Amino acid sequence: MTSSTTDQRPMTPDELEAALRRIGAERYHSLHPFHDRLHGGLCTKEQVQAWALNRYCYQSAIPRKDAALIARCDDRELRREWLHRITDHDGLEGEEGGIERWLKLTDGLGFDRDYVISKKGALPATKFAVEAYVRFVAEKSLLEAVASSLTELFAPNLHKQRISGMLEGYDFINETVVAYFRRRLDQAPRDAGFALDYVKTHARTVEQQQAALAALTFKTEVLWSQLDALYFAYVDPALPAPGAWRPGEGMRDKLGAAA
Amino acid sequence: MTSSTTDQRPMTPDELEAALRRIGAERYHSLHPFHDRLHGGLCTKEQVQAWALNRYCYQSAIPRKDAALIARCDDRELRREWLHRITDHDGLEGEEGGIERWLKLTDGLGFDRDYVISKKGALPATKFAVEAYVRFVAEKSLLEAVASSLTELFAPNLHKQRISGMLEGYDFINETVVAYFRRRLDQAPRDAGFALDYVKTHARTVEQQQAALAALTFKTEVLWSQLDALYFAYVDPALPAPGAWRPGEGMRDKLGAAA
Repeated sequence: MTSSTTDQRPMTPDELEAALRRIGAERYHSLHPFHDRLHGGLCTKEQVQAWALNRYCYQSAIPRKDAALIARCDDRELRREWLHRITDHDGLEGEEGGIERWLKLTDGLGFDRDYVISKKGALPATKFAVEAYVRFVAEKSLLEAVASSLTELFAPNLHKQRISGMLEGYDFINETVVAYFRRRLDQAPRDAGFALDYVKTHARTVEQQQAALAALTFKTEVLWSQLDALYFAYVDPALPAPGAWRPGEGMRDKLGAAA
Repeated sequence: MTSSTTDQRPMTPDELEAALRRIGAERYHSLHPFHDRLHGGLCTKEQVQAWALNRYCYQSAIPRKDAALIARCDDRELRREWLHRITDHDGLEGEEGGIERWLKLTDGLGFDRDYVISKKGALPATKFAVEAYVRFVAEKSLLEAVASSLTELFAPNLHKQRISGMLEGYDFINETVVAYFRRRLDQAPRDAGFALDYVKTHARTVEQQQAALAALTFKTEVLWSQLDALYFAYVDPALPAPGAWRPGEGMRDKLGAAA
């Protein structure tokens, strides 16, 4: 998958960056057919609902993931730098945070908040992938934990596509519900830039570089497998796992109408 | 999903057994469309290969799962009873064990053993689900860990269907490669009987009973989500995650022929 093996010289920092970016080009979930449908306006409202409901599990786990990283980090500077990721999602004082913005999206899609937050309608595969990510960050080396965040390098293009594609493609999507993605257009590049510098600086040996590349690959699998599960459950053959959300469930009113 | 809530009386042991069996009737992966295809002779050889390759990840994790249970069990009798599950899979002295029998299946399908054992072609969703199961057993209560094994109650019917359906449906399946399932016809009922008695004896309060039912439900999700991922990757739309096994990879010879 990558060109280096352990008997070769380490890559230069710029070669490492290129190898990391190649993983994005080959494996980021922007390439998944579910996203083609979502951003092309081809999803049914129920498919958009299923996506938002499941993706909540991922969003809501991010502060735990980042706290797991901080919890094992003896470098005060890195902890200080990393901390805002938690507040970006959980909010702080006057700032509502990304999870609240995600709930505005699920509000806009007609969901009852308690239902979304309970995660009880989420697909098992979503929950397994999300928890695999939290555990990876808690258990692997700090370098691998940081490197696994680098999918943020590839997020802004996806978010731009998503904002314009969803506003254009669906009459039930408006500016309020895409606020999460607009905000991430600023946040993700700042965070990704820091993490990329960290990895380029700290991954010096061949082994460290391979570990960083493998960590980013792992993270692309976490994202990709969530869309596989959505596609199977809600697009084709459209067979949600027993107990998972069925269209119409978990709505604020019986019609499933947006507010 | 279940009829009891925490303000109700506990079920009798027989009512609890009935509730556990109801979970099997509603959620066991015998109901999954991938199994209809597999047992009905409708899979391509590549789909059977993908199934055997991915399912190896599950099989090979079972001794770790059972060791995790023993590792946290202060009851010597339970440890003594549980230990044979590890040797059933890993083998001991003259007995090859279930993992070896599973490798005879992947041998028969033409796979290189090192490739299978490396798990590098397995779907991410398979690995996430399997590790979620190992962690569940390591982290939940002992009662929940035991209860999560109770899918074995439902396995013999599935294995009987599988043996006859696969022998009849595929010219590349023979008695050697179905040896794993024949052996489980004896092993699973014995193990399931012990675990069922344990759960019926130890789940006395409403909370314990609900936890046992939830543990079995969780386990059905572990099994079900693996088939969702297989279906998506190799049946329809037949799009394996980036890096996952592609038909023809990992074979002992370039033709992918069985030995």
